[in-house]
Amino acid sequence: MNTVSELDTPSALVDLQRMQRNIDRMQARMDALGVSFRPHVKTSKCLPVTQAQLAAGARGITVSTLKEAEQFFKDGISDILYAVGMAPARLGQALALQQRGCQLKIITDSVAAAQEIGRYATAHNAVFEVWIEIDTDNHRSGIKPEENALLEVAHTLQDAGMIVGGVMTHAGSSYECDTPEALRAIAEQERAGAVRAAQRLRDAGFACPVVSVGSTPTALSAAHLEGVTEVRAGVYVFFDLVMRNVGVCTMDDIALSVLTTVIGHQEEKGWAIVDAGWMAMSRDRGTQSQKQDFGLGQVCTEDGQVQEGYILSSANQEHGILAHTAGPDQNIARRFPIGTRLRILPNHACATGAQHPEYQAVQPDGGTAAWPRFYGW
Amino acid sequence: MNTVSELDTPSALVDLQRMQRNIDRMQARMDALGVSFRPHVKTSKCLPVTQAQLAAGARGITVSTLKEAEQFFKDGISDILYAVGMAPARLGQALALQQRGCQLKIITDSVAAAQEIGRYATAHNAVFEVWIEIDTDNHRSGIKPEENALLEVAHTLQDAGMIVGGVMTHAGSSYECDTPEALRAIAEQERAGAVRAAQRLRDAGFACPVVSVGSTPTALSAAHLEGVTEVRAGVYVFFDLVMRNVGVCTMDDIALSVLTTVIGHQEEKGWAIVDAGWMAMSRDRGTQSQKQDFGLGQVCTEDGQVQEGYILSSANQEHGILAHTAGPDQNIARRFPIGTRLRILPNHACATGAQHPEYQAVQPDGGTAAWPRFYGW
Repeated sequence: MNTVSELDTPSALVDLQRMQRNIDRMQARMDALGVSFRPHVKTSKCLPVTQAQLAAGARGITVSTLKEAEQFFKDGISDILYAVGMAPARLGQALALQQRGCQLKIITDSVAAAQEIGRYATAHNAVFEVWIEIDTDNHRSGIKPEENALLEVAHTLQDAGMIVGGVMTHAGSSYECDTPEALRAIAEQERAGAVRAAQRLRDAGFACPVVSVGSTPTALSAAHLEGVTEVRAGVYVFFDLVMRNVGVCTMDDIALSVLTTVIGHQEEKGWAIVDAGWMAMSRDRGTQSQKQDFGLGQVCTEDGQVQEGYILSSANQEHGILAHTAGPDQNIARRFPIGTRLRILPNHACATGAQHPEYQAVQPDGGTAAWPRFYGW
Repeated sequence: MNTVSELDTPSALVDLQRMQRNIDRMQARMDALGVSFRPHVKTSKCLPVTQAQLAAGARGITVSTLKEAEQFFKDGISDILYAVGMAPARLGQALALQQRGCQLKIITDSVAAAQEIGRYATAHNAVFEVWIEIDTDNHRSGIKPEENALLEVAHTLQDAGMIVGGVMTHAGSSYECDTPEALRAIAEQERAGAVRAAQRLRDAGFACPVVSVGSTPTALSAAHLEGVTEVRAGVYVFFDLVMRNVGVCTMDDIALSVLTTVIGHQEEKGWAIVDAGWMAMSRDRGTQSQKQDFGLGQVCTEDGQVQEGYILSSANQEHGILAHTAGPDQNIARRFPIGTRLRILPNHACATGAQHPEYQAVQPDGGTAAWPRFYGW
């Protein structure tokens, strides 16, 4: 077993103590609010992370690709929600999973797609459980709770013999909030919209057993979740600088970082050059439009101490430029000599993790274990 | 063999006819300018692409990670420049490659790093060929041609018994140009700076056989390359929207695209939702600061016809939002019905390719072949 100081750079580190604290905090909150929790595993795409979430009490998982569904089903996880609108050409892949015993739920938000699902299922003598996607904040997909299309889609599915399993929504615009008041308001908007949609379906005779809502900010901000049966959230497991700016975690909660080495300097500019470029950090600039812009990441020492004001100000593919936000640090080459190892906290844990074939899971004693993650479709 | 219409989405397509035209154009230009050409394979990380570059006349390759060096050396390519400042802790990996017969060249731009290289080599009874990185445009790493450090580094290397193989520079600021005049000027600045650095080394008694310069924009814009021995460039093999805005390719030269499927709409907003989000496109927003902003990509039909004005205006992990730049297209759901397959041209081919485990190489007859690419460090 390696220690952090023996790892190659760049590497993606996961602080296991922080990760477990994040998992426990979310699960305890869901338990207190009286709802099931279905973590979104697109953040990690990593079995040990997902197992830790299930061990803490999560029921089922949410995925963003059918490849995630296939990988995690192979690993013994059966209750899976595929939370991206179903592409007709992928229905065969969904059916194959179902036929192998996966309790796969798919989603739709249009009559046209519901018809495609029905047609495919009828032709293949299959039944899909379909949840209807609700738009509660105008940010992406879904049917608004009061739209006629809601009932039209439900009837289209029912007429084709599909199971209308429930409604689901994701208030992604919660990422744009940064006050407790705004967060509570968007969480209530998400809850109320989903519950209203479910009520309309029930009034029309549909059982609509599931009312599924969630995003990390709303899950951590909802005052109550009356009428909701389950919550989904993903990035909370690692947190990141975007979530720190939203206000749902502190810098000390961020469990993912990129280990890097100083490889050069431009002293008059106050730059240190590190071997973590955008390939290691991702191109995500999520904090650019937030209250504190961290460039491409916050610089910490190798053991994780935040170096106030030092960020990755820009990056090329395998070069990161480390600088101080207040202007050139003329002492940069003495502060961070060549060979210095640093950790960089990322803007967006989902995007940064995706750049790495594996995580290095860091235990409290400093030992590490390689945790593979997958990618692709 | 699949045709494009049978491929899953999202997929990364490479138009082989365009790729070969891009390769031939660059090699013909290098031949006419009388220099060797050493393509940067960080763009593709794919053996068949690299083999096509070598078959056209390239001599050796440039890599951005030692993993690329290991992969391509395993595939029989021996003449390799690792064009990122050497991290001391990676010297063992470089030595192992050399001991297996790889003609690996490493680079440095500081006395401190040169000392580390010398110390390691002495301790392991090894000799590295080291090129000195020159800063010709103030954008990232390197020693300026007139700095004292240039000779200090060369002497440090020589005193430790290393081979001072030459100088190399990369005028990355050429990406910020968008007129032929500015491009010719930055190409000349890159050439003159590298040649001047080599001259200073020769005046001090170093042979300095190699003078290596390059970036795609400068390689395609230099009026002459007197004193230069080799050129490096990477993204020209695929080109992309950033290079189209720089002015060194047309839209019809772009060989890389992402195949995607329409999965939903928000009609009143004029949105189509597609299954290519930032996971498939990358988060690169390189055209944001250029003369034409393509959002996250330019929309084309499945067979590659550019759909003027339609771009990916934003994206989440597995959702892309397709919209018209002039405002909501109320006809969007009829223009691009659910199930419609489209190609999206990327901002930055290096970043977009990196998101995909393989390319689908598309032949002129429409047949495709899976070309694996690797990632990680």
